[in-house]
Amino acid sequence: MNEADIISFIGNKFAAKNKNIIVGFGDDTFCFKSGGKVLAVTKDMLVENTHFKTAWSTPFEIGYKAVNVNISDLASMGSVMPLYILVGLGIPKNTKQSYIKGIATGIQKACKEYGCIVAGGDTVRAEKITISVTAVGECLSSPITRRGAKAGDLIFVTGTLGDSAAGLQLLQDNKKSGHKYLLSRHKAPKARLKEGAAIAKCNPSAMMDISDGLHESLKIMSATNNLGFSITAERLPLSKEFLKYCKINKIDPYALAISGGEDFELLFTISKANAKPLQAAIKGITCIGEVIKDEDIRYLFNGKETKVKHTGFNHF
Amino acid sequence: MNEADIISFIGNKFAAKNKNIIVGFGDDTFCFKSGGKVLAVTKDMLVENTHFKTAWSTPFEIGYKAVNVNISDLASMGSVMPLYILVGLGIPKNTKQSYIKGIATGIQKACKEYGCIVAGGDTVRAEKITISVTAVGECLSSPITRRGAKAGDLIFVTGTLGDSAAGLQLLQDNKKSGHKYLLSRHKAPKARLKEGAAIAKCNPSAMMDISDGLHESLKIMSATNNLGFSITAERLPLSKEFLKYCKINKIDPYALAISGGEDFELLFTISKANAKPLQAAIKGITCIGEVIKDEDIRYLFNGKETKVKHTGFNHF
Repeated sequence: MNEADIISFIGNKFAAKNKNIIVGFGDDTFCFKSGGKVLAVTKDMLVENTHFKTAWSTPFEIGYKAVNVNISDLASMGSVMPLYILVGLGIPKNTKQSYIKGIATGIQKACKEYGCIVAGGDTVRAEKITISVTAVGECLSSPITRRGAKAGDLIFVTGTLGDSAAGLQLLQDNKKSGHKYLLSRHKAPKARLKEGAAIAKCNPSAMMDISDGLHESLKIMSATNNLGFSITAERLPLSKEFLKYCKINKIDPYALAISGGEDFELLFTISKANAKPLQAAIKGITCIGEVIKDEDIRYLFNGKETKVKHTGFNHF
Repeated sequence: MNEADIISFIGNKFAAKNKNIIVGFGDDTFCFKSGGKVLAVTKDMLVENTHFKTAWSTPFEIGYKAVNVNISDLASMGSVMPLYILVGLGIPKNTKQSYIKGIATGIQKACKEYGCIVAGGDTVRAEKITISVTAVGECLSSPITRRGAKAGDLIFVTGTLGDSAAGLQLLQDNKKSGHKYLLSRHKAPKARLKEGAAIAKCNPSAMMDISDGLHESLKIMSATNNLGFSITAERLPLSKEFLKYCKINKIDPYALAISGGEDFELLFTISKANAKPLQAAIKGITCIGEVIKDEDIRYLFNGKETKVKHTGFNHF
């Protein structure tokens, strides 16, 4: 049972028709109408050894990442103003006060960057450090969901792909020096909040964040829309640090960029007509392919469909 | 560093003045103004072996309790209508699908009882089962906070105290048969949502839920209000099942009722003038003492101050 299955199961179990629910289960963020506004609530939990290791990340980075992962979910809905963060901290016995302060400082820094307030919290004892963040925001325009892609639409991503996966490999191989950028992309990722708002203005047809890797995200988008994607692999945006890392270590950069998780970039589809003003208005986005009718994910190199080794990034 | 210290530390660190925040850090629930309404958001995390054991509780009970613990936080703010529940599930590898379904069914049952909807969720891999629930509600009247008690006010509790602690002891001693009531009070507690709303109508001066035991709650109320409490111990409401359990096991019922946690009853203060209509209007509440000027917690037996052995109930 993987995450999508569990979410789908709980979603089906609790499917509810409610006129105030704008975006329910199965999207990055829950959005509901209240008092003439649309509010967005999301929660993501980071668990020691699943999402971070204390040997690799500083407590500051852990707190910083916990907030960013949630802001990324808000960003994927388009133009959302983060308002409040609630923090649930699971802390092992004998955790040092300075460690908790480090986590708190990381949370505070991230909140400051996004203009939101840590407004509540709860601490419990746990065997592993667990940070459950709930982010509350206000949608400033209609939420962009995962559903709505149409055959013929173009598909874009923000930023670069694979950096976080390379950063994780470096940590696993205990190669920490000289790779500040890649390590930072894994340990202290930044959410694409401004980009989400800018993209929303250009009428994208569907959007989500790439938390579990490009391929996993495309699979979700594909199943949600009963459509497929034709990805021009050589167009995938790769950082020079990432390419250098792959070259030295004889890794296929495309395979890693496709399967690696936790980039927290945005993935969105948009009609060809809307893509032109989009590309004129926003820097740092890349068209990586097109939406196709068949529910399939195809990777093309030099116009030919190619099998790309991808393991996916699935916690289960 | 205990929970109050950590909360206080994070609270101080993130203290913020914001005109939309009605109730911030340091109370059961965060309340904020939005679009002419006051919304309430709370989150509580249940962690395997801290809050439940899989050998003791069914997955249904675990899911049911996770929701109730959060609804109890909403109830402690007075008249709050629960709207939405978001669930973060941390699941160990190889957890059976039927187990997850059991948790989901418990969550669903509790939500049905309180008329709220499971509206979103997230699953992650964790070494221990972790359920992080976020509850969103709408305040139907001004939130009742922990602050506001005055010397001379009376102090009340709902229901009975100590049942959950006795239930926990029974589980620890592997005595499961013949104690359905006490076990159920520990494994599948019910939040006092209706009671909270009814109490709110009678103008209580302060309120909180008793999640960590009466003594711990009084300590928090005392520190928050710079006041103390004189508790008439023989007035503490104790169930006949609890008294029977204590008698058979030669346990001081008052000590256990004072120190035992997870009763999820409401504790509130109210002026003597307001207490009369309150007692006429609401059944199942008990006056247990009075608010005093000195920041101290005194337990009286037959009018004499008595030391009561209490260990408190502190996860840290």
